[in-house]
Amino acid sequence: MTEKSSTPDDSFHVFDTTLRDGAQREGINLTVADKLTIARHLDDFGVGFIEGGWPGANPRDTEFFARAAAEITFRNAQLVAFGATRRPNAKAADDPQVNALLASGAPVVTLVAKSHDRHVELALRTTLDENVEMVRDTVSYLRSQGRRVFVDCEHFFDGYRANPEYAKAVVRAAAEAGADVVVLCDTNGGMLPAQVQAVVATVAADTGARLGIHAQDDTGCAVANTLAAVDAGATHVQCTANGYGERVGNANLFPVVAALELKYDKRVLPQGALRDMTRVSHAIAEVVNLAPSTHQPYVGVSAFAHKAGLHASAIKVDPDLYQHIDPELVGNRIRMLVSDMAGRASIELKGKELGLDLGGDRELVGRVVERVKERELRGYTYEAADASFELLLREELRGRDGGAGAQQYFRTESWRAITEDRPDGTHANEATVKVWAKGERIVATAEGNGPVNALDRALRVGLEQIYPQLAKLELVDYKVRILEGKHGTSSTTRVLISTADGEGEWSTVGVADNVIAASWQALEDAVTYGLLRAGVEPAP
Amino acid sequence: MTEKSSTPDDSFHVFDTTLRDGAQREGINLTVADKLTIARHLDDFGVGFIEGGWPGANPRDTEFFARAAAEITFRNAQLVAFGATRRPNAKAADDPQVNALLASGAPVVTLVAKSHDRHVELALRTTLDENVEMVRDTVSYLRSQGRRVFVDCEHFFDGYRANPEYAKAVVRAAAEAGADVVVLCDTNGGMLPAQVQAVVATVAADTGARLGIHAQDDTGCAVANTLAAVDAGATHVQCTANGYGERVGNANLFPVVAALELKYDKRVLPQGALRDMTRVSHAIAEVVNLAPSTHQPYVGVSAFAHKAGLHASAIKVDPDLYQHIDPELVGNRIRMLVSDMAGRASIELKGKELGLDLGGDRELVGRVVERVKERELRGYTYEAADASFELLLREELRGRDGGAGAQQYFRTESWRAITEDRPDGTHANEATVKVWAKGERIVATAEGNGPVNALDRALRVGLEQIYPQLAKLELVDYKVRILEGKHGTSSTTRVLISTADGEGEWSTVGVADNVIAASWQALEDAVTYGLLRAGVEPAP
Repeated sequence: MTEKSSTPDDSFHVFDTTLRDGAQREGINLTVADKLTIARHLDDFGVGFIEGGWPGANPRDTEFFARAAAEITFRNAQLVAFGATRRPNAKAADDPQVNALLASGAPVVTLVAKSHDRHVELALRTTLDENVEMVRDTVSYLRSQGRRVFVDCEHFFDGYRANPEYAKAVVRAAAEAGADVVVLCDTNGGMLPAQVQAVVATVAADTGARLGIHAQDDTGCAVANTLAAVDAGATHVQCTANGYGERVGNANLFPVVAALELKYDKRVLPQGALRDMTRVSHAIAEVVNLAPSTHQPYVGVSAFAHKAGLHASAIKVDPDLYQHIDPELVGNRIRMLVSDMAGRASIELKGKELGLDLGGDRELVGRVVERVKERELRGYTYEAADASFELLLREELRGRDGGAGAQQYFRTESWRAITEDRPDGTHANEATVKVWAKGERIVATAEGNGPVNALDRALRVGLEQIYPQLAKLELVDYKVRILEGKHGTSSTTRVLISTADGEGEWSTVGVADNVIAASWQALEDAVTYGLLRAGVEPAP
Repeated sequence: MTEKSSTPDDSFHVFDTTLRDGAQREGINLTVADKLTIARHLDDFGVGFIEGGWPGANPRDTEFFARAAAEITFRNAQLVAFGATRRPNAKAADDPQVNALLASGAPVVTLVAKSHDRHVELALRTTLDENVEMVRDTVSYLRSQGRRVFVDCEHFFDGYRANPEYAKAVVRAAAEAGADVVVLCDTNGGMLPAQVQAVVATVAADTGARLGIHAQDDTGCAVANTLAAVDAGATHVQCTANGYGERVGNANLFPVVAALELKYDKRVLPQGALRDMTRVSHAIAEVVNLAPSTHQPYVGVSAFAHKAGLHASAIKVDPDLYQHIDPELVGNRIRMLVSDMAGRASIELKGKELGLDLGGDRELVGRVVERVKERELRGYTYEAADASFELLLREELRGRDGGAGAQQYFRTESWRAITEDRPDGTHANEATVKVWAKGERIVATAEGNGPVNALDRALRVGLEQIYPQLAKLELVDYKVRILEGKHGTSSTTRVLISTADGEGEWSTVGVADNVIAASWQALEDAVTYGLLRAGVEPAP
């Protein structure tokens, strides 16, 4: 790549396979909507290629490619379809699996090919020569149809150990047939960096092919193996967000690109993209519904946390003596576990972002920091609940300016939700809410698909009499996380709700000892924020 | 070391610092009893050195050394006290901090020393020459008192970059004064393997000292950095169990020793010790009260889990083609995951794992594959719900063998859950269940912290009259996932429940249009599986 340019060029590829290989991780089960959301995050982050799945192999992946083409305008990435070389003793042009790759409309295809002699014989059950022919024929056919082709040589490193000449013959066949990159895969993940470096260097010299690397983390060295391949001449790295993947996982995209940009001084992402890395990592964890790893390199909340004492004063004098990079370069921050300095700064920044003038009011900011800390300790999270945070900030501002405190459009007297399983197998969900607004007592009852849906409807049916603006509100997303997993259903429950009004979307949070009560809190905030957005004056 | 002997000798050191550097991890807070338990595990596992803490610096560490000497008969390890070089411009023999190291009774002392010129000036506030003198004097004094001494050169790699001659002068001073090993520390964790290898090789050649390596994981390369140092001649590796440590953590002991034993073919632990590795890793996680990482290399429960249907048929033929080592070598095991990407082969393997003989019954396996696919399309996931999968499999087996189908201990007539927010702000959760078991109709009502907790209690209160075995069941984890995020609370909800009976734990799944109904399904499976485990005969 051009090391000083502001955008990466084709000379180095950051290739993401979160949606294909990453989805193999135990516990991840992505819907098409999840995949589209992740693809948007990855494109925003600036990876060059997004491998979306195996179209034709399962209906979800086929649907993903159709919807991605229709719904996403990619700014940085190209979409890649993953598939296999054609069946033995047939023509690629006649192979439905190969044609499904073309039908996906993806401009790039990654073909998985066998390069380990025993895998050819035992898994493909064909001859070594026919396997080479399968690679050549499938690559040529896809090239003739105008596709760019990368070839993933599965089990390459084990295959190279068993039969180096055959492994290299597959690489040569792929490159000669028109594959732009031949990717050497450590599919079983057993390699160490020195071995990877030696093999990649030899294969590059012997075949002249442009090489890529796909590393799995079974020895705990996937990031290092990826960098070792780059040291040996590979110019294409395959990674997954947060290292998700089968067994232990894949090479983690984030430390790989951070090392390339910050340690190698290579431009592999659009300028400035790295500063979004922590946010992107956490957002993708949210979509796959796994807690972000607190100890992940670069992006974990602990990654730049310093314990108090020994180092504290020295860190103040010169933080660079105690951290390997400036955490802001990756969108993370230093955490002094005794000081609220960082907290204050981010509250002020956040206020500015929301257009609320905190006017350098140290006392106000201090009160907000304290409330956020106290609530986060109880399980709230404001990172993913902007609207709840803004309501909290406004409450403190109104308090300072002599206002009534909370932005209150209504006051809850009580509510009740009943879910019933009837003998005929159907379910009934009914909720009743009793609230006060503009001096009136409102009692409303509604049914729903579940208890929270029933509560949401009852609240809005009741309040619409006073606030007709609520008619256009729609609850669009609902997430539940149980905190402290070892206490079963008696543990703390956090609910995040997203609400839309046709013009925008906002998120609110609720925390309680049960899912219904936590949902109610988030619903109250959602409705309050909706009225605030609509410009309605508070009148409890 | 002697590569073929059954025990490691002094030529290579496995040095564990879980109790000192590992304890710096955010969230770890060890009591003396915890430290003694971990020391026993590490000694059993066979590490050569256990760094126990800084005696004199805090009373807990002083007590640990006293009690370890009195209470533990070490079979493999030597206890190591950690401390600092003497104060500037004084004598080591007169320094209370140094004498506390002697008073600990530990036969080995690790001294931390500055080797980065700016740290000497800014943190120690002394001259470069005096720092070298502090190293020389403190090492000589401890040697004169019969202690073995290792010297940790803090911030060595950053120091070497800033002033290589000075960094090497510190190494030389330590070695000349009698330190057995000089440990090069990547304290800020910013190094990459190629850099570590180059520096270690140069320092070894230029100083002739015996070198060790202490790596932090801030680039995600701590294991690889440790191995790179070994490649360059280091013969002493400092690690922590599960990679615990400050910020991101330290080099993880387990993948380091596994690589040395299995990939380098070096004997660094007593023969057979590696087969205890998975157990030791989980036991230490238990003591420090952190959930074992499911995706840790070698020892995670997912480390040898296979998901893709593609591989499953070939794994049956030859598992070695699909795993980098035999999991039994590290005390782990292969696991086949059931998912919609899987096919017949993985169902058969899973049946074998569960001890259910599917007897090559193609029709039965076909029916199971179809049911799993159909249910996964509706949102079920069986890879995280072993017990629900086993119930499904048993149902099909019983059907084939002329049985009644499902393993039914009870039949649900109906249930109801009510959650109420009272005007005083408290919540009430009440559930009523109506079920049939052994011909009896049971109606039971219970309260709980939330609606699901109330349902769980009501079901078990009711059924315990018939099945007293249920008394020991406990719901230990509860997870909720909303599928298809764009439909709010009217979308599909998946609930995963883990239940324990004091001997083991199992997971069940439920999917429905609302969280309460989905929870009920998972609770039904949880109770059914609990009774099956207890050996109770089905009698609906």
